[in-house]
Amino acid sequence: MGRWEPNARERLERAALDLFTERGYDQTTVAEIAERAGLTKRTFFRYFADKREVLFGGQEELTRLFSEGIAGTPAGATPFQAVGGALDAVAAVFTGERLALARQRQPVVAANSDLLERELLKRAKLVAGMHDALAARGVGEPTVTVAAELGCLAFGTAFHRWVEADNRREFGALAVEALDELRAATADLG
Amino acid sequence: MGRWEPNARERLERAALDLFTERGYDQTTVAEIAERAGLTKRTFFRYFADKREVLFGGQEELTRLFSEGIAGTPAGATPFQAVGGALDAVAAVFTGERLALARQRQPVVAANSDLLERELLKRAKLVAGMHDALAARGVGEPTVTVAAELGCLAFGTAFHRWVEADNRREFGALAVEALDELRAATADLG
Repeated sequence: MGRWEPNARERLERAALDLFTERGYDQTTVAEIAERAGLTKRTFFRYFADKREVLFGGQEELTRLFSEGIAGTPAGATPFQAVGGALDAVAAVFTGERLALARQRQPVVAANSDLLERELLKRAKLVAGMHDALAARGVGEPTVTVAAELGCLAFGTAFHRWVEADNRREFGALAVEALDELRAATADLG
Repeated sequence: MGRWEPNARERLERAALDLFTERGYDQTTVAEIAERAGLTKRTFFRYFADKREVLFGGQEELTRLFSEGIAGTPAGATPFQAVGGALDAVAAVFTGERLALARQRQPVVAANSDLLERELLKRAKLVAGMHDALAARGVGEPTVTVAAELGCLAFGTAFHRWVEADNRREFGALAVEALDELRAATADLG
């Protein structure tokens, strides 16, 4: 291993986003990302399995935060309240700096079908992680599956609204609102 | 175009499944699939964009059946009743022959991460199709999004139970049961 590189992961993610925005995802190589970040290709592959993964580095953290948030809700909490705990935990790290990166990332992913496909895979893993964290609290099937699906749907809705260009509201408030909307919607299904 | 080939699509799908089962997905070429089906590579590409797609030929039909089933439910039907109409429409074509193919297909897809990723993309398209068909009936947001997600979840649950080796029940009965379970689960979310 080379010398210690401070914030290598973040520098690579930022360099990749800048290059993808400037030149397009397909026109950017891993070597160019590493160079822009002032690091080596070898360092890139220490953090990411391939070029696609540099756009999905935050997903493991999300899964961990969801799980911690769910585990941290009081013993008597309903499934929806536990999901609310997951969204609160994520809201704590969704700061202004994170928002700027998310806004830059969105059009890059949307422009490439391979990236959209990977995004769906990551979403499925988020649902699975939320499912497992809820099941660990004793929520049984099929309630746990529905709660995890709707929890990730609330997350996705809030995230979408958060990154909109003219949005000024915090992620946490948007998440509470989205979950409340879904709760109300379940009563209208008949 | 060459001479007319009866059931070319079905023959290619069946040949592909047989070869994938015998040799594995990665070890099978499009040329080999065409040869096994007694057709040409050129004919293969008239029906499927690539090797992966030969496993997903039924998805467009599913989307069409979902839409027709939803459109065919009475005007006053609830969103869940409309979803039930979609599942009924699919049940009508999920016969014993289809079950044999589905049982053969399942382990092929499960063994390959690229195929699993494509399956997720197809699932997202099914959800989108159900969403649009429900929206066309006047079901508003976010109810329509929740109904489409739960509808596809019910479909997935029923399908999973249907293809299990020891299952003897019809798809239609399994679908009604799965949708009833999800309806009950929405009342337990708190």
